[in-house]
Amino acid sequence: MSVAIVGAGPGDAGLITVRGLELVRECEILVYDRLVSPLLVDAAKNAALIARDGLAQEEVNELLVRHGLRGRRVVRLKGGDPFVFGRGGEEVDALAAAGIPYEVVPGVSTLTAIPGLAGIPLTSRGDAAQLTVVTGTSAEGGDLDYAQLASSPGTLVVFMGLGRLAQITCGLIEAGRDADEPAAVLSQLSWPGAEIRTGTLETIAELAQGLGSPAVAVIGAVAARANAPQLAALA
Amino acid sequence: MSVAIVGAGPGDAGLITVRGLELVRECEILVYDRLVSPLLVDAAKNAALIARDGLAQEEVNELLVRHGLRGRRVVRLKGGDPFVFGRGGEEVDALAAAGIPYEVVPGVSTLTAIPGLAGIPLTSRGDAAQLTVVTGTSAEGGDLDYAQLASSPGTLVVFMGLGRLAQITCGLIEAGRDADEPAAVLSQLSWPGAEIRTGTLETIAELAQGLGSPAVAVIGAVAARANAPQLAALA
Repeated sequence: MSVAIVGAGPGDAGLITVRGLELVRECEILVYDRLVSPLLVDAAKNAALIARDGLAQEEVNELLVRHGLRGRRVVRLKGGDPFVFGRGGEEVDALAAAGIPYEVVPGVSTLTAIPGLAGIPLTSRGDAAQLTVVTGTSAEGGDLDYAQLASSPGTLVVFMGLGRLAQITCGLIEAGRDADEPAAVLSQLSWPGAEIRTGTLETIAELAQGLGSPAVAVIGAVAARANAPQLAALA
Repeated sequence: MSVAIVGAGPGDAGLITVRGLELVRECEILVYDRLVSPLLVDAAKNAALIARDGLAQEEVNELLVRHGLRGRRVVRLKGGDPFVFGRGGEEVDALAAAGIPYEVVPGVSTLTAIPGLAGIPLTSRGDAAQLTVVTGTSAEGGDLDYAQLASSPGTLVVFMGLGRLAQITCGLIEAGRDADEPAAVLSQLSWPGAEIRTGTLETIAELAQGLGSPAVAVIGAVAARANAPQLAALA
């Protein structure tokens, strides 16, 4: 494979996959996200390093295609999983259109790392048989159906993009969701600066101010169980 | 740490995390699920091997506590991520109650591996800003709110438990969801026997018959995009 789209996991360098690390170590060109452990960037010992920050998505696509056409071993290293509310799909489409062979290596998503790292089970027999996920980073503000979301049972996760959290929690409360429902924000899980703040649907956006990326909000009964057994160990 | 709860990833041995494999290699006792790569079981070179199959959950908990109390290095290796619709939480609760130090190592969930391995983006700008996940393995049949699910926009995932898929798709159609909506079933992603079948909400349960675990059903516009770029490479 010439180009590999690799998920780096939620933060800690040990949470990349074995296959992902192997590709990083052997690559000639590494294009990496800001939210990737510096230890993983260091592991690409013989690679030209290209930070993705400051590049438009079209420039990233073009970069992967250009080096891929030359047959260089390229790794595109993305935070979390490349395809969970990410734009890995656009990169794959560009490679496929150019006829470049590629490999996708999934990563541990921040979404699925929440339960183990923050002590919050996203689902739980009894009080959370359903999980609903919306993104906070969508380009359009009016793309969420608040009436439908307000009535969704189980756990609601707002993935990334805390900047829109106030707008989303307001929309939910106006649409009838209980303002006193437990809520938690998990910031930089598995990073040294990991932090959890807990409150209610009404208070959580205010409480989340100042927290760093990547961050995820959890709304629902399970949010009250946040206990961060792992955060202490990793910090 | 005495006991580690480790996610093995969706199937392929290279999709365990670096930290997870390190713990497997060093452990003295390995308690492993059926849906875990034999290569990972072999990697536990010096360990006593205990298959979880045939044990009740309470027996697994008791096993982890007993060996943990003796200070043995125990790894509980679970398919996918230990906490995504899994019962890792019950094992952690048992360890915590017994005062045994434990570590949780998240894994690549089958849920988040779908996009990369099956070519189906769970979310997509435009036609899928929301993701809803329900489990097909719940003990109770009447725990899903079909009216609410039928009106949920975006992508709907039925996670594991294909045995209930006919009941769930019927419930959705009766509650008003479009019977012609695209649907796909993804079986054993990243395993040698990986298979994808595509159809509609009305036909997918029938089409899924005979497929092996782990399996996931995707309902929504994105399901039509299944193309399995990775399946060929891995098979």
